Amino acid sequence: MSTTMGTTRVFNVHARNWSTQASSSDSSGSEKNDDNEKKLTVSSYWGVTPPSITKADGSAWKWNCFRPWEAYQADTSIDVKKHHTPVTWNDKFAYWIVQACKYPAHLYFQRKHIHHAVLLETVAAVPGMVGGMLLHTKSLRRFEQSGGWIKALLEEAENERMHLMTFIDIYRPKWHERALVFAVQGVFFNAYFLAYLASPKLAHRITGYLEEEAVSSYTEFLNDLENGAMEDIPAPAIAIDYWCLPQNSTLKDVVRVIRADEAHHRDINHFASDIHCQGHELKEYPAPIGYH
Amino acid sequence: MSTTMGTTRVFNVHARNWSTQASSSDSSGSEKNDDNEKKLTVSSYWGVTPPSITKADGSAWKWNCFRPWEAYQADTSIDVKKHHTPVTWNDKFAYWIVQACKYPAHLYFQRKHIHHAVLLETVAAVPGMVGGMLLHTKSLRRFEQSGGWIKALLEEAENERMHLMTFIDIYRPKWHERALVFAVQGVFFNAYFLAYLASPKLAHRITGYLEEEAVSSYTEFLNDLENGAMEDIPAPAIAIDYWCLPQNSTLKDVVRVIRADEAHHRDINHFASDIHCQGHELKEYPAPIGYH
Repeated sequence: MSTTMGTTRVFNVHARNWSTQASSSDSSGSEKNDDNEKKLTVSSYWGVTPPSITKADGSAWKWNCFRPWEAYQADTSIDVKKHHTPVTWNDKFAYWIVQACKYPAHLYFQRKHIHHAVLLETVAAVPGMVGGMLLHTKSLRRFEQSGGWIKALLEEAENERMHLMTFIDIYRPKWHERALVFAVQGVFFNAYFLAYLASPKLAHRITGYLEEEAVSSYTEFLNDLENGAMEDIPAPAIAIDYWCLPQNSTLKDVVRVIRADEAHHRDINHFASDIHCQGHELKEYPAPIGYH
Repeated sequence: MSTTMGTTRVFNVHARNWSTQASSSDSSGSEKNDDNEKKLTVSSYWGVTPPSITKADGSAWKWNCFRPWEAYQADTSIDVKKHHTPVTWNDKFAYWIVQACKYPAHLYFQRKHIHHAVLLETVAAVPGMVGGMLLHTKSLRRFEQSGGWIKALLEEAENERMHLMTFIDIYRPKWHERALVFAVQGVFFNAYFLAYLASPKLAHRITGYLEEEAVSSYTEFLNDLENGAMEDIPAPAIAIDYWCLPQNSTLKDVVRVIRADEAHHRDINHFASDIHCQGHELKEYPAPIGYH
């Protein structure tokens, strides 16, 4: 790259905290000289600084994946046993697809709950993203609003990703689990994409049942934590900040709020499927944004 | 459907405001009887009610596509002439792709600015969604955080969609424009998806240059509004609420804030491309979430 470019400037690519590091590295001695040799010319766009965010107590906010105003207190009073009885062929087909996938997963993971949860969340974060994306492109193509459903589905995807970010703080998946997730995502993303294109009512019903199974898996997880079959451990810091949990919370509290989240996603997806089943479009009914 | 299902209840599918309408339709007379005949049995999931939101003055919030806390005041002081000089082959390739698409669009729309803006926004809302979705699936597959980039890119997509929702309030596209948007989206979405998979640095650079062209188009739009070549009209209500504009704002004010938004997206995308050009991954640098 050339330094004659009007908008270029020299910047130390090793200085991660670029906004302050560049001018305050006087005391770094020989390390500074080493770094100087590695200086590269980069464009003037280097360094669009993110806003500086602090917690209520004045300490720096340490998460980039969510912001303080996205933290919330989960409504754990939700009915975790609610089940949508399959009535139509569409319902039954969706139910049996989920059942057919559930048994191999239970056989594979048995009572290794955290391992199971990690795989489950990599799958559960897909439908919201696929649905949100397809509704977004539909909204653009048809020049019409989505009734908030794009946002509601993307919120679901983000929430599921936050569950995963919480679990990987206490468990790093092994290579064979990574390979499994890679393969499952490849198949599930494409299958769900096609299912949503072909029949949103089937796709949302499948997600509804998937979430019912997630709730039931987390109930088993919680039971094993409560009856001592599994050791309880302190809650990861990210979970305490995301769900506004007390500082002394444990994994048990985390599993309880995650289960409540899944129960809310179950409701949203069965509702979305119901809207389609009645011959309506999602946009006709305002989405329950922020329902968790 | 059967009424023997434990969780079903009868609901009037014509009652759009289901939470209140059902009990307050005593005065609807013969229309009520007609509706009763069309009653259908639906699942208990019918009616996951969205939260009731009011504006600061106590009146009901009327937009489903965004919420009061997503409204913001655009930073119109941003440099609207900033240009990333193409240096590498990657930059030059991206620049010429955008130039090659720009001329036919200018030829087609000439000075029909609103028509041009509508088409532009249906295209501009695609890259953020594609990038956000691909980073989301990568985050799940690799069990790692994205440094906030998923959110930053999805925010961009949503912001562009809000521009479109604003313009369609004052202009309804004709059938041939709809057909054009349909075709352009089909090609652009898939092309950008493949480009992002193959080279995120190329994809973000293309978006950076696309946003530069958007800024320049809106400058022409603004000039024609300012010199009277085009009649100024009152700002759509959705724009007043989204950008917290004064009640007496006009289209000129709306175009000014939209141009500022595009300039911010330009910065984010050139920055993202720079990160890749330096051999880094986006997650290593916190995303400028809420940069607009």
